[in-house]
Amino acid sequence: MRKNEKCAIGIDLGGTFVKFGIVNQSGKILKKIILESKADKGTTSVVKQIKKGINELLSDEGFKIQGIGIGAPGIVSLKKGTVEHPPNFPGWGIIHLGNIIKKEFGIKTFVENDANAAAIGELMFGMGKYLKSFVMITLGTGVGGGIILNKKIYRGEFGAAGEIGHISIDVNGAKCNCGSYGCIEAYAGNNYLINRVKNKLNDNPESKLFELFAKNSEPLTPKIISEAAEKGDKFAISIIEELGTNVGYAMASVSNLLDVSTIIVGGGVSAFGKTLLDNIHAAMKERVLLSMKGRVKILPAKLKNEAGIKGASSLVFYSH
Amino acid sequence: MRKNEKCAIGIDLGGTFVKFGIVNQSGKILKKIILESKADKGTTSVVKQIKKGINELLSDEGFKIQGIGIGAPGIVSLKKGTVEHPPNFPGWGIIHLGNIIKKEFGIKTFVENDANAAAIGELMFGMGKYLKSFVMITLGTGVGGGIILNKKIYRGEFGAAGEIGHISIDVNGAKCNCGSYGCIEAYAGNNYLINRVKNKLNDNPESKLFELFAKNSEPLTPKIISEAAEKGDKFAISIIEELGTNVGYAMASVSNLLDVSTIIVGGGVSAFGKTLLDNIHAAMKERVLLSMKGRVKILPAKLKNEAGIKGASSLVFYSH
Repeated sequence: MRKNEKCAIGIDLGGTFVKFGIVNQSGKILKKIILESKADKGTTSVVKQIKKGINELLSDEGFKIQGIGIGAPGIVSLKKGTVEHPPNFPGWGIIHLGNIIKKEFGIKTFVENDANAAAIGELMFGMGKYLKSFVMITLGTGVGGGIILNKKIYRGEFGAAGEIGHISIDVNGAKCNCGSYGCIEAYAGNNYLINRVKNKLNDNPESKLFELFAKNSEPLTPKIISEAAEKGDKFAISIIEELGTNVGYAMASVSNLLDVSTIIVGGGVSAFGKTLLDNIHAAMKERVLLSMKGRVKILPAKLKNEAGIKGASSLVFYSH
Repeated sequence: MRKNEKCAIGIDLGGTFVKFGIVNQSGKILKKIILESKADKGTTSVVKQIKKGINELLSDEGFKIQGIGIGAPGIVSLKKGTVEHPPNFPGWGIIHLGNIIKKEFGIKTFVENDANAAAIGELMFGMGKYLKSFVMITLGTGVGGGIILNKKIYRGEFGAAGEIGHISIDVNGAKCNCGSYGCIEAYAGNNYLINRVKNKLNDNPESKLFELFAKNSEPLTPKIISEAAEKGDKFAISIIEELGTNVGYAMASVSNLLDVSTIIVGGGVSAFGKTLLDNIHAAMKERVLLSMKGRVKILPAKLKNEAGIKGASSLVFYSH
């Protein structure tokens, strides 16, 4: 760690925790803090926690902080620095988070939707260094995304672009939390996926997954599915294959629409590894337009742990 | 018609005919020529026809021609002015059409994909004058589209963006010509639509449509469906409603992904009018994300007759 190297503060605002990091221009976290969000105690408490974390990081004078980047859920206006109605933050409304932080610390501050921040993080610090354009899909509790075209994030009319989770692959399909049907999130989002597995598990009593899940009476998680698949469990593998195929079908529509053929897959479920990526690739290649078939590339995200902090910090280094 | 007003030549390159027009800055066609494409006689013949048409228009010296715009099918590189493998042009390969025309006439020439040209036409001469961002969907033999964001066409990596026809609404759905399944083109494209109607017609012997179609032994066309619907035929109306709903579902995915909430509907099938537009609107509003619901707008295209010529000519007035 070189002291006095140019750094940014990255803040990953979540419903339970706020994660803070000092990150250098290579995307390395040099210092990290995690605080409770206190979202249930209202906006003032959350903002207080954010300020507290920044103060703590700034108290270490060994870093040349170039700016602060915040990745937030909900609708974010990059220009105004506002965060609107983030889910899991009751009574939040619309907060000028950018201005509040900038005013408090006199440091330039960028606020961005967390999914866009993850894509910019991948652009600045990850696989995107070698790519001009890609679509980032993040498979977690929800399914999010970000679109990078010619090294720039595509934000749409109000900064809400990239809602890949709510591409429907079947208008008569599974009911999604958003009110629509067949959204890819309703197949690939963690909770949906786990429920589908649970429902099918009784028909597959020979599955190691059944053993792992039932014996330990632990909650069924993507990690357990992954472990079973690694041990050669056919049912677990079929789950990952089906997931990859559905994601690939959704990405084929995305790719046809956007004319972007490289997909970066991140998020917890991406730990399903090669089986997942190969199935996304095969399904996508099968379904995209002819001119696109030769170009399809599926890559794993490079930012894994603390991708949220890194993505947020990258906003400072990204040329807006 | 004011002589000496600034004009552009717009060329709509189709598989059967090439249409040429002199168009003023308001999008009015002042002079028009239609020639055979002679696509079956090879590239040289097609290029000859294009040159012939331009020569004929230029022989009238009353217009101040600012440039030539060409809307072509297939993959078009705006930068290079190339047209690659347009369907219905056997043995075409890759032709530097822009350079050829520019060299021949010494007039600046823009070549663009015909779907993008239609969207730019709507931006410059039509509804887009009052809009910053919209998605144009053209319902014809195929289903095409173009994406305008902040008054600019969104072209993607290779200028192929906007393939709205190949957004799948059901991964297990109708087989599409492109090789995929459930593409909206496989529901809304003219031939698919007509086939679906024919297949259902025997179950609806009371339909006026049946009468119009069977008695006249004319080919069943969108126009006949439209006429029957106007006469209150329930089956015809249900066809248009179903079409609108499917298009609306596809556009909900598009809108979620792109964060663009205004849709302009053009092409022959858009003659289905208010019933079609209302059903697209209802379906889309039902399925988009909450933050988008209040913003959804469906508008009919303003450029109807000769939208191809007008769109191509608009390339000259559009700031690239």
